Amino acid sequence: MADGDARVLEEQAAAAAEAARELRDEAAALAVRRAADEDALRRRAVALDGDLRRLQGSLAALEPAALDKVEEDLERAKLAILDTDVAAFLPNKGNGKFLKKFVGPVNVRVARKEDKLKVKDEYNNYRDRAAYMFLLFPSTLLLLRWWVWDGCLPALAVQMYQAWLLFLYTSFALRENVLLVNGSDIRPWWIYHHYLAMLMALVSLTWEIKGQPDCSSKQRGVQLFLRWAIMQGIAMHLQNRYQRQRLRTRIALGKAKRMDVLAGETAGVEGQLLLLYPVLFVLQGFEAYVGVLLLQTAWHGLTSEWQVAVCGILLVVMAVGNFVNTVETLVLKLRFKAKMKRTRHRQDPAAQGGPNRPHQN
Amino acid sequence: MADGDARVLEEQAAAAAEAARELRDEAAALAVRRAADEDALRRRAVALDGDLRRLQGSLAALEPAALDKVEEDLERAKLAILDTDVAAFLPNKGNGKFLKKFVGPVNVRVARKEDKLKVKDEYNNYRDRAAYMFLLFPSTLLLLRWWVWDGCLPALAVQMYQAWLLFLYTSFALRENVLLVNGSDIRPWWIYHHYLAMLMALVSLTWEIKGQPDCSSKQRGVQLFLRWAIMQGIAMHLQNRYQRQRLRTRIALGKAKRMDVLAGETAGVEGQLLLLYPVLFVLQGFEAYVGVLLLQTAWHGLTSEWQVAVCGILLVVMAVGNFVNTVETLVLKLRFKAKMKRTRHRQDPAAQGGPNRPHQN
Repeated sequence: MADGDARVLEEQAAAAAEAARELRDEAAALAVRRAADEDALRRRAVALDGDLRRLQGSLAALEPAALDKVEEDLERAKLAILDTDVAAFLPNKGNGKFLKKFVGPVNVRVARKEDKLKVKDEYNNYRDRAAYMFLLFPSTLLLLRWWVWDGCLPALAVQMYQAWLLFLYTSFALRENVLLVNGSDIRPWWIYHHYLAMLMALVSLTWEIKGQPDCSSKQRGVQLFLRWAIMQGIAMHLQNRYQRQRLRTRIALGKAKRMDVLAGETAGVEGQLLLLYPVLFVLQGFEAYVGVLLLQTAWHGLTSEWQVAVCGILLVVMAVGNFVNTVETLVLKLRFKAKMKRTRHRQDPAAQGGPNRPHQN
Repeated sequence: MADGDARVLEEQAAAAAEAARELRDEAAALAVRRAADEDALRRRAVALDGDLRRLQGSLAALEPAALDKVEEDLERAKLAILDTDVAAFLPNKGNGKFLKKFVGPVNVRVARKEDKLKVKDEYNNYRDRAAYMFLLFPSTLLLLRWWVWDGCLPALAVQMYQAWLLFLYTSFALRENVLLVNGSDIRPWWIYHHYLAMLMALVSLTWEIKGQPDCSSKQRGVQLFLRWAIMQGIAMHLQNRYQRQRLRTRIALGKAKRMDVLAGETAGVEGQLLLLYPVLFVLQGFEAYVGVLLLQTAWHGLTSEWQVAVCGILLVVMAVGNFVNTVETLVLKLRFKAKMKRTRHRQDPAAQGGPNRPHQN
């Protein structure tokens, strides 16, 4: 290389070093400025949040006539805080023990509202894909058992399914904890449910799958479990469809707090609910039935393995918890619906047919 | 409640709603302003990064005399970009498949440099705690086997240990993926190693632990594995101590890129390395030995379980991979040291005794 070229290179490198220094200082200055802006907003958001809580607390003393106006103002203020970019400035509960254990104390909170919607959307897509696997995996196992495996499930196939369940429930629990940090009002039970399901998958992995002879009676528990899993896959599909449609309806109504995973109201999807709830209740009944069968097997000493008893107990606990929480959600929905009807009736009898809500951005 | 009080409450609620609206608009405006600031910085950072890469590419054609100055400028520029708040504006490779599978596409990148150091620090603390458990858990199992369990490990105790290993390796893999997103230059092998270790923990969970009679020969594999785990615990302690001290030295030298997990140089910790490397090599030898023993057991048909063969293969693969990567790191260290000596010699013969590096904040 000629001397002149070397000098050019030297100058360019020096210029780059200088530019990098400048950039470093500006980035640091921006970070400081941003921290100051954020602190100011945070203080105001926290103060306002406190005011709203205090006002909400005084509502009980109010007479019905005055109640509506105040309630509506408070509702509007809450939406403007919780469902916008302001939400990022309110203190949150932190990552929660589960997320901290697995991923550490890294910030998984999403600052911008659009990004939050992306996280929620991705969770929905993940649930959709999982629901297909939930149908396919156990169906395939049962079909192969009948066609190829001569009535006897091979241990490895069942264990691969159990390992997949362990992974799936772990990822559900992690993702739902991320949603929680980002302001979702998912019911805590559904996350606990996934912890219990993780435990069951783990326990069932250590459960010895017995082979020939006399498979069909020895593997009765596994078979029942697979059939229940197929039903669960169907129910997940229905739930996903219902929740997507509900989300779409709520967004259309201009009142979407799209981080809600469950709960809320039923605008426009009553038809689907008539199908969803019975399916859910049947599923929970079947879950409890499988659990009781496993417990009976353990009780009568037909198997010496503690895993059978533990899985039985876990299934019954999950079935009962699911049932209680589904009923509670249903009651909330019905109550909310009744209240909405009453409010509309009182406020504006002419608007009964359509939504009568403050417009949100 | 008196009418007056109700009116006060109404006014307060209206004021709160108004304040919330204002706050919402300001937060949105701040978000827009911030996005614009960030875009401008990002464009400049990306352009400068490209310049640096181009200049780095032309270095080969340069003569040694001109090389030093240009290399130093480039090094300085790189530090000012990669090790400051600027780093957050450079495009990164995204979360990686593993993290995406478990946690979803949520942003785990830390914006501010201080927060990055916190993440790294927490990872180190986690490694420390894990190292204690790594010593305690298998030691307790082996001691209880000798004192209480009459030479026979109960299946449940071993399975709890295996489940803990599965959790531990999963959390290591997740945390290291987070570090990777945040610019750590951890060697990819150590993450692959944790994937393999996860697989082994999963496989060993399905491995039937045989009880009486004749435990000691049937449980020979498990025992060897536990002894190896104790050694691993000791090695982890040494590694952690060495890495913390190295980090402290580098920070003191003013050249810390604290997101490095491994690699780099050995300033001030040569004494510890003389202990660490032999221990690491013995550990890897023992790991391979346990693997080969398991494979022999499977080969001679002493057990019909595929888990034994798979765990044997995994242990041998991990031992070989660990060995290769440890040697590579060692060679890099030695080469870097030789180069540093040479450079100092040439640049400033008087400064041989101390560090002669550009000062970085």
